[in-house]
Amino acid sequence: MSGFTVWLTGLPSAGKTTVGDLVAAALANRGLLVERLDGDIVREHLSAGLGFSREDRDMNVIRIGWVASRLTRAGAAVVVSVIAPYAETRRTVRLLVEEQGPFVEVHVHASIEACRRRDVKGLYRRASLGEIGHLTGVSDPYENPEAPDVRLETESEEPRESAERVLGRLDERGIVRR
Amino acid sequence: MSGFTVWLTGLPSAGKTTVGDLVAAALANRGLLVERLDGDIVREHLSAGLGFSREDRDMNVIRIGWVASRLTRAGAAVVVSVIAPYAETRRTVRLLVEEQGPFVEVHVHASIEACRRRDVKGLYRRASLGEIGHLTGVSDPYENPEAPDVRLETESEEPRESAERVLGRLDERGIVRR
Repeated sequence: MSGFTVWLTGLPSAGKTTVGDLVAAALANRGLLVERLDGDIVREHLSAGLGFSREDRDMNVIRIGWVASRLTRAGAAVVVSVIAPYAETRRTVRLLVEEQGPFVEVHVHASIEACRRRDVKGLYRRASLGEIGHLTGVSDPYENPEAPDVRLETESEEPRESAERVLGRLDERGIVRR
Repeated sequence: MSGFTVWLTGLPSAGKTTVGDLVAAALANRGLLVERLDGDIVREHLSAGLGFSREDRDMNVIRIGWVASRLTRAGAAVVVSVIAPYAETRRTVRLLVEEQGPFVEVHVHASIEACRRRDVKGLYRRASLGEIGHLTGVSDPYENPEAPDVRLETESEEPRESAERVLGRLDERGIVRR
């Protein structure tokens, strides 16, 4: 069976990790070999030393894309949760992965106000105190995906519902049967 | 079928890429999904920006080891050609990979004089002209593996013979049947 990559992109605290974990668990339950590439873990293993300038963010995202493409080639179900704020870089990553298998872009959307309220990692708070710069959605841009495969609305959907929508899309595209 | 990693370590121009390519081709011929992680390519995709200090070399090697472990988990036959000069770092990488599948360390050995004569990439020449520092075997250490799975002698063996010995070892260890 051929591998594929599901890429969850969105603002900090939009719900990328929560939904990604649920999708990964559901795929593993179906017996797929799942590889989870989550932003923080990946920064530790692949991109220690990179910062948050546009250049460094792009390098981080493309590096993850390269690893996702290798794992897709090897037949894994790869679930990536990374902000990936720039549309052009997401396109680059899509092309890299599509050389090996399907690429499913998921926009995990919540308003900046909702993300700021959740503030899972305290990043918005730290940015408001001036402790960190380059926070996506605050001092750094996030370019909304124009035509994602799925657009999740995590303010109005439960995480389980969002995950179901991603799985539904994988079914529609013929990648994983329900 | 479970994945595994063959790691070819040795001095620059010892023959790591040549033998690795032959091993990779032979494994692909047997229908295995092969992933080739060769030093220069990997530096481009995973470690752009890292230099050749001990710290940067270690980070490069461990990063490759992490990717090799993910690909081993996904079932790939991973063939790595990287100098990996430090014994402790090679041990770290072995442990990382062995969480997922077999790790086969191959010491690709040739005398420093032979490597200097071959000088495939002109590195020894550039080092002798003072154009580059940190060249393994010249101005940087290479710690010989004490107990590699295979030790190739590329001064007295033909590349094909060396590759056969690696394949023979994979057979002996029950990883890939001849």
